[in-house]
Amino acid sequence: MARPNPNDPVTVSFLSDYGLVDEFVGVVKSVVRHIAPEARVVDITHGIAPHDIRAGALALARSCQYLAPGVILAVVDPGVGTDRRAVAVETEEDGQTLVGPDNGLLAAAVSMLGGATRAVSLTNPDYHIPSPGPTFAGRDVFAPAASHIANGVDLAELGPTVDPVTLTPGMIPLTRVEDGAVLAEVLWVDRFGNAQLNVDPDEVAAMGDRIRLKWGEQTRTARRATTYGDLKPGEVGLVTDSYGLLSVRLERRSASDELKLRPGDAVSLAVPEG
Amino acid sequence: MARPNPNDPVTVSFLSDYGLVDEFVGVVKSVVRHIAPEARVVDITHGIAPHDIRAGALALARSCQYLAPGVILAVVDPGVGTDRRAVAVETEEDGQTLVGPDNGLLAAAVSMLGGATRAVSLTNPDYHIPSPGPTFAGRDVFAPAASHIANGVDLAELGPTVDPVTLTPGMIPLTRVEDGAVLAEVLWVDRFGNAQLNVDPDEVAAMGDRIRLKWGEQTRTARRATTYGDLKPGEVGLVTDSYGLLSVRLERRSASDELKLRPGDAVSLAVPEG
Amino acid sequence: MARPNPNDPVTVSFLSDYGLVDEFVGVVKSVVRHIAPEARVVDITHGIAPHDIRAGALALARSCQYLAPGVILAVVDPGVGTDRRAVAVETEEDGQTLVGPDNGLLAAAVSMLGGATRAVSLTNPDYHIPSPGPTFAGRDVFAPAASHIANGVDLAELGPTVDPVTLTPGMIPLTRVEDGAVLAEVLWVDRFGNAQLNVDPDEVAAMGDRIRLKWGEQTRTARRATTYGDLKPGEVGLVTDSYGLLSVRLERRSASDELKLRPGDAVSLAVPEG
Repeated sequence: MARPNPNDPVTVSFLSDYGLVDEFVGVVKSVVRHIAPEARVVDITHGIAPHDIRAGALALARSCQYLAPGVILAVVDPGVGTDRRAVAVETEEDGQTLVGPDNGLLAAAVSMLGGATRAVSLTNPDYHIPSPGPTFAGRDVFAPAASHIANGVDLAELGPTVDPVTLTPGMIPLTRVEDGAVLAEVLWVDRFGNAQLNVDPDEVAAMGDRIRLKWGEQTRTARRATTYGDLKPGEVGLVTDSYGLLSVRLERRSASDELKLRPGDAVSLAVPEG
Repeated sequence: MARPNPNDPVTVSFLSDYGLVDEFVGVVKSVVRHIAPEARVVDITHGIAPHDIRAGALALARSCQYLAPGVILAVVDPGVGTDRRAVAVETEEDGQTLVGPDNGLLAAAVSMLGGATRAVSLTNPDYHIPSPGPTFAGRDVFAPAASHIANGVDLAELGPTVDPVTLTPGMIPLTRVEDGAVLAEVLWVDRFGNAQLNVDPDEVAAMGDRIRLKWGEQTRTARRATTYGDLKPGEVGLVTDSYGLLSVRLERRSASDELKLRPGDAVSLAVPEG
Repeated sequence: MARPNPNDPVTVSFLSDYGLVDEFVGVVKSVVRHIAPEARVVDITHGIAPHDIRAGALALARSCQYLAPGVILAVVDPGVGTDRRAVAVETEEDGQTLVGPDNGLLAAAVSMLGGATRAVSLTNPDYHIPSPGPTFAGRDVFAPAASHIANGVDLAELGPTVDPVTLTPGMIPLTRVEDGAVLAEVLWVDRFGNAQLNVDPDEVAAMGDRIRLKWGEQTRTARRATTYGDLKPGEVGLVTDSYGLLSVRLERRSASDELKLRPGDAVSLAVPEG
């Protein structure tokens, strides 16, 4: 997307598994407000399930190309208190810099943004804020780092350089083909119950209009459709979604609830028999 | 309300049924941030139940007079992918412009803002953003339209003019009187369990201080009260709420939970017998 | 924390029990946007359980030292419609001013911010906004007051001075020692299931590395640990949290769910027998 005017305030796009019931998100945003009062924070989501790195990585990957240039602050951090690194990663595209734990959360987004051009480990205590107890990494390390970067501080100030090849890789599953079937996985179930698969429409283009889906104990024949509106009541649709991947859908109802499809479930796609 | 200084950045007030668990809201706000970096987004709510046009329309109607002048972006869109129109509607009051699907969602707010002075269908692709798959209307059509309008682009640029009388009307139910009883409906149950009825206090003023409520299999006598604080424990109150409508309440407890009142339920109000 | 440049727009930090499903938060923020268009609103949280003054007071106390200088708008107000006062309280530290109901919600934060230097009762109708029905205090009284204070209006304009010693005190429970055991209470259970106690680590420092916890019908031996990472699977940890208080934790699982610990539960801490 087009880059805004360089005089516009920088954006800090913020994703976490903090939820909105506790004050964690508010405190992190208050720290940013203190250190980088000019920056604008845009919340991506804070509804990632607690400690679900894979779901956080996928949400970042789906959204990263739409985020305003600046800093992407991402915190899903089950390893807080272990020796996992806290990092900032500069990417090729748009000058986006990602800040978060080095646990695979950032990997897919970094790759979609053209790959890492530079990375540092956030160990310089001059850019942390003091804690009344052990470190609350989001508040005391990640938010200050994101804010200082938003203010124009060079990454090199925040800690020692890290070789980007040592960053923890992502865990986005690939499909494979076995006996003519595409073995796939549910990546994501959205609020409307649509179940996104890790399948590019081209992978099943040769199968035609009707595709047999198998998962768990179930087998259903789905129809390729362009939109919701093309589906008849009760029909299982296989629709290219607005991210360019295949999605299992029902007309105005939750495919996830009715078909019992959950993130991580294995699904095979093949030409129907007979 | 008083209009802010014209030099102040324009406001985009945003309501949807996207929820806050997925990244939809964050992506839409990022698109606005790109295209209209000066605009300020104020979230009205994103907690409308999926595809519940009526609940969205009512929330817009309750809030529209309080929204800062600018653009109101509203997306509850079960018909995405059908031929429902995407529209922008300019209103008499405050120069508010509403952007959303033409499915009845906007109707009550448009009416409360003095009626439509102009409307267009958002079909000009120059003001859409490209999608990696089929259109995600909030991200690809509605957010760009709202942003360009916030930037001062004239409605006529966004697509052909639509006659406002062809816009889909709202679905706000009216009361009717039968055998001396006012037949009403629960419009809304709020977080605190208060059940708002579509009844103006004047409609039941002649019934006196005690009013018999009937719904489903239940009959209860409610007392007209000015505030929560006037209710005794266990007493059912019929209170004029801060929107000027009658609301069924219990003192510090959920009337909805305890009395089993849900949005859409029919309730009759009459003078108690005997 | 360091104070931002006086030319930066003032911050209104906002906490409530409104939730995010209704439009209450959006309407309050729209009112602020109207009256104080320069101000920036930072949401602390709106997920306080309905009417739970104690939970709101604790969330304010945990966050207040991190909030950007300006106005803290806090609304958990079960007494709306009674004669509880609506107040603004100026504090020693950072020039923070708190606005909310005088029901104990603000007390702990006021104390952590150095105590009240001045307080007023928000009774001047010139600084309210008119309601179509009875007052919605957040929208009609508290939001306008917070906005006018953000604009630089002196507290004395908003209503008569109140002696700070007459403000409703807080309800934060203290520990007591009985037969060598520290009798404590669960203050808070966070999204990750960690159960924060009202216990300073110094209070149990002499008990050593293993501490017997008793609550309800249960007895467990917990191990003092520095971080999550130090806990073995299945081990109950007693960790100093990032607020400086003891917290009952399990490694990457919810201590609250598995051990049935809820806010307000009494817990005793002692040296294990034998």
